[in-house]
Amino acid sequence: MPKRLGRMDEDKLLDRFEVAPGKRLHLKDHDPGWMGTPDLRRLGRDEVKARAHRYLEANLEQLAQAQELLWASDTHSVLVVLQAMDAAGKDGTIKHVMTGVNPQGCRVVSFKKPSTHELDHNFLWRYWQVVPERGQICIFNRSHYEDVLVVRVHPELLEASGLPPGKRGKSFWKGRYEDINAFERHLARSGTLILKFFLNVSRAEQKRRFLARLDDPDKHWKFSTADLHERGYWDQYQKAFEEAISATSTKWAPWFVIPADHKFVMRTLVAAILTRGIRRLDLRYPTVSAEGLAALKQARHQLESEK
Amino acid sequence: MPKRLGRMDEDKLLDRFEVAPGKRLHLKDHDPGWMGTPDLRRLGRDEVKARAHRYLEANLEQLAQAQELLWASDTHSVLVVLQAMDAAGKDGTIKHVMTGVNPQGCRVVSFKKPSTHELDHNFLWRYWQVVPERGQICIFNRSHYEDVLVVRVHPELLEASGLPPGKRGKSFWKGRYEDINAFERHLARSGTLILKFFLNVSRAEQKRRFLARLDDPDKHWKFSTADLHERGYWDQYQKAFEEAISATSTKWAPWFVIPADHKFVMRTLVAAILTRGIRRLDLRYPTVSAEGLAALKQARHQLESEK
Repeated sequence: MPKRLGRMDEDKLLDRFEVAPGKRLHLKDHDPGWMGTPDLRRLGRDEVKARAHRYLEANLEQLAQAQELLWASDTHSVLVVLQAMDAAGKDGTIKHVMTGVNPQGCRVVSFKKPSTHELDHNFLWRYWQVVPERGQICIFNRSHYEDVLVVRVHPELLEASGLPPGKRGKSFWKGRYEDINAFERHLARSGTLILKFFLNVSRAEQKRRFLARLDDPDKHWKFSTADLHERGYWDQYQKAFEEAISATSTKWAPWFVIPADHKFVMRTLVAAILTRGIRRLDLRYPTVSAEGLAALKQARHQLESEK
Repeated sequence: MPKRLGRMDEDKLLDRFEVAPGKRLHLKDHDPGWMGTPDLRRLGRDEVKARAHRYLEANLEQLAQAQELLWASDTHSVLVVLQAMDAAGKDGTIKHVMTGVNPQGCRVVSFKKPSTHELDHNFLWRYWQVVPERGQICIFNRSHYEDVLVVRVHPELLEASGLPPGKRGKSFWKGRYEDINAFERHLARSGTLILKFFLNVSRAEQKRRFLARLDDPDKHWKFSTADLHERGYWDQYQKAFEEAISATSTKWAPWFVIPADHKFVMRTLVAAILTRGIRRLDLRYPTVSAEGLAALKQARHQLESEK
């Protein structure tokens, strides 16, 4: 992140993390430990971190303004999808990127194990309930992609979901990708900006963070033995991510693969991509018509002439 | 409706009301006053009506059984969409076809003018909330098609819906049809049988029914001057129906154009098509495994040995 980053340089930098629609994603080509361009890395970790921090601060200021404009113009909404392996830093990213935003126009929805009532419906149903309304930013902390990730890695979850019997081969999963793309396309047509982030942590870094949780009594609550169990399925998850992201990165709802081994890199990139996305909507404060202005004038007159 | 209608004859009869996927619907080819095949009509109205009534009764019995099976097997659901011009007989059809069904497994949802909160979302949102759960039959009395019918005929409703600015030409409406088809396809993939009925009343019959409401003080509550106002848009509605039905009659969610000038014909056909649809799901009562049977035996033993 150079000191003064022009819009074109910025676009070029951020675009490299986007998965082009129709392109097959290979995670081995994406370095979770990425920490800037070679030019930058030469400056050393501390300097990169300091610059990233300044860039993040600038973006957070812009984000707070952008969110106010989003709320005022009331035509668009924003849906941010966060997916990752455990301990990649979803919660921390939400905290650091969204804390400066007015909560009246921002909502975080976390999805846990589906309830029996939820399973009694189509798999998108529980996500449908909570899509953002106009003017709002909504963060999905885990999302409808769980149904093609964890459910794919653990087919027994699918069998417990009450679906009519049938084959669960390639075309079954292709059907789910199609349904997801159509769902997101409909939202996009209604004015929802959709940005999807895969926080790409390495297996080694996950191990380090799990151990840190075990070492620090204040972090024990963050550790669950289930997380360790899921770590055993690392390769299956990577494959499921590759396939799902390849099939669902679209013009109207692109995926970004964000290097997540350095938290300051991850947060800075997510904030920059989100801020740029809202800026590109090119929103304006609603203008008031001539009649409207006359009515405001009349209102002022009435207030001032009150006894 | 011959005295004994074989399955093949029945299929042939019912199929003629289905709009084949991809085929352009021309309402002028569909007689709202249809009252049976030429063979039948020769028997006279009273005899046709009597036969239709017996056929309806038989179907209603089957429907009640089919609904119990649907509830017990708990893998599928049914969504019935009813659309029509005013006074075509939507409410009467629901009453006559669904009254014998256990309300625990059946729900009717009527959609009125959308609320401000609903308009703050994508147009499908309010329909998403109430799709049937497994085991349930859900009737949409009016539906998501209102958003390509009344909203199409009255573009000012669209402009009041808070969408981002943009062109509202052919491709806008094509987008809505696509969204609707994808929505229904997703439900179908999840095990929802979708059957859509356009109750096709003639302009002359609507006039007769409106006058009947005005003549009979007990029916005054059914009449609204807004209905008369909408009648003024008859041709625009017919065109909107033709286009919407042509674009959204699919293999997974077919439209049926039901002659509606004779209520007994309309109700009989809707009941027959619905009953046939559920029968074709080929549902079975859940079977109990060997272990399950052993557990039942054990339960009987425990109950009988109670002191």
